[in-house]
Amino acid sequence: MSITLNSPLDMHLHLRDKEMLTLVAPLSAKTFSGAIIMPNLVPPISTKEELLAYKSRILEATKGQTFKPYMTLFFKPTYTKEFLENFEDELTAIKLYPAGITTNSEGGVAGFDVEELRPTLTAMSELNIPLCVHGETNGFVMDREAEFVSIYEMLATNFPKLKIIMEHITTKESVEALDRFENLYATITLHHLLLTLDDVAGGMLQPHLFCKPIAKRPEDREALRKIAFASHPKVMFGSDSAPHPQHAKESCGCAAGVFTAPIAIQVLTELFMKHSTIENLQAFISGNAQKIYNNLKVPKKIITLEKEAFLVPKIYGNVVPLYAGETINYSIKEIES
Amino acid sequence: MSITLNSPLDMHLHLRDKEMLTLVAPLSAKTFSGAIIMPNLVPPISTKEELLAYKSRILEATKGQTFKPYMTLFFKPTYTKEFLENFEDELTAIKLYPAGITTNSEGGVAGFDVEELRPTLTAMSELNIPLCVHGETNGFVMDREAEFVSIYEMLATNFPKLKIIMEHITTKESVEALDRFENLYATITLHHLLLTLDDVAGGMLQPHLFCKPIAKRPEDREALRKIAFASHPKVMFGSDSAPHPQHAKESCGCAAGVFTAPIAIQVLTELFMKHSTIENLQAFISGNAQKIYNNLKVPKKIITLEKEAFLVPKIYGNVVPLYAGETINYSIKEIES
Repeated sequence: MSITLNSPLDMHLHLRDKEMLTLVAPLSAKTFSGAIIMPNLVPPISTKEELLAYKSRILEATKGQTFKPYMTLFFKPTYTKEFLENFEDELTAIKLYPAGITTNSEGGVAGFDVEELRPTLTAMSELNIPLCVHGETNGFVMDREAEFVSIYEMLATNFPKLKIIMEHITTKESVEALDRFENLYATITLHHLLLTLDDVAGGMLQPHLFCKPIAKRPEDREALRKIAFASHPKVMFGSDSAPHPQHAKESCGCAAGVFTAPIAIQVLTELFMKHSTIENLQAFISGNAQKIYNNLKVPKKIITLEKEAFLVPKIYGNVVPLYAGETINYSIKEIES
Repeated sequence: MSITLNSPLDMHLHLRDKEMLTLVAPLSAKTFSGAIIMPNLVPPISTKEELLAYKSRILEATKGQTFKPYMTLFFKPTYTKEFLENFEDELTAIKLYPAGITTNSEGGVAGFDVEELRPTLTAMSELNIPLCVHGETNGFVMDREAEFVSIYEMLATNFPKLKIIMEHITTKESVEALDRFENLYATITLHHLLLTLDDVAGGMLQPHLFCKPIAKRPEDREALRKIAFASHPKVMFGSDSAPHPQHAKESCGCAAGVFTAPIAIQVLTELFMKHSTIENLQAFISGNAQKIYNNLKVPKKIITLEKEAFLVPKIYGNVVPLYAGETINYSIKEIES
């Protein structure tokens, strides 16, 4: 039995730059119609010139493929309305990082003073530009996201017209917050639907499953699965696929990030066929995001899958994917665009 | 100002076998008068012949050093009183592992049926042989030790004359259990006085800080520090120093264990000088253990330390120690035995 998915979107993607960009962008562009591209390069994307140049590099890396990179800026509280208006259609969202909280986030927000943030967030509200947030405090690793919920609430209350997207949520506290405020939305990754801390550190330590936010408790994963499988209209798929070279993962001081781009659609299909319906996956992986992102224009792409074993490569270039060398149960049979 | 410690004991030590034994045993024997030697070799130590042969190999590896290996057996519920009596003074304790819970524990106890365990535990009670326990269930990694407290309680209640040592405790739940039952005791490692999960997985992932039980929450570490620094008479130092070759730590699927033997005394001295007194360290590192272990006979060894920077080697043989390449603040100046 064939399964089709229309115009899948990855609403949270790291493509990096240079050789890594060249390696990973085509892997996302193969199966996704488009993706929200994270701006945490070194230095982070914070001008129109940088954004357009990065977009060109992405288009160059995905030449001949049907793939739309939805570009984002690295949040700074100094962005004015005029500055943001000048991006016209080139800017899809702005990503806010607390300072130092994850890979290349050193220039992020330190402290969350509402008055300091007000001018930029007011401008974004008026221009209807969504704010994507990496929501972790610098507290204890298992508490960071739950502690950040009060900051989400502060933002949601003070900027009721701002669409705030809680990126890669991992806890039941974030799931509960979703329904308390009309203007809170969320992305959920594939790996947080699959993993708990047990998978990362319960047996041997597994560097390729180490990510930020770290996978949490079984009841947290259950809360995520519940809203994802029900295709809650305020949640959407964002892989947070984050490639690092193998040596940076398998070493003393392993970098955070799970590389899921090449297998995300196949594994999501398996999960939803087992626990939900393909209609709900269609909404989770495309429909919800289009609505949340103000009727996003999406390139047409039809993915046909079948229940057929697929042996995941042990490595793509120098990047080890999730399920490296293992067999997954769905394969992509046809891609039409 | 010089500090002296008399006859330090490591009440929980992994010396492994063959080349690794030859490498690490002299490092413990240098500064410790003696150590409780864990029996989880492959296969585990479970006969008098194996125990005596392992003891000989340890004595050979530490030839010329003043060091007493206190030998242990790998717990099996089939040990009879006659079998245990036959060890005479050669057996100091028996170590119980739940099946599959840590390195080389596959042959451990599956399920904790009190009647199945009764014959051996009764014999141990009568012979006054302490039971050392790795207290973790196979539950979620952050809950395993707290979940095991009910098993400690079952053992303590059913075998009131058995000395039960909760090995390498890491949680406030274990600390609380200590005072609820007269026959419960505990060892505490150096690394669990130092680390929380934040150190292991809060920044980059740190394979050399990954151990079982995994380091827990800040409030757990605080509970451990409180009883250690107060030199609670039912707790004693056990390093759980657990060497693995560098390649087994820095790889995909990293082995559990922190190697602290060569720097444990220096770092404990720093901790106790800062947070407690050297008298309390003397009790924690030797006096308490001698009492708990039925007036253990301990070789005389006097360690003199000074507050003087010591650069920890990056590697001992093929084993990376805690604080590899870093400077610690106390140095050993003299060892007299």
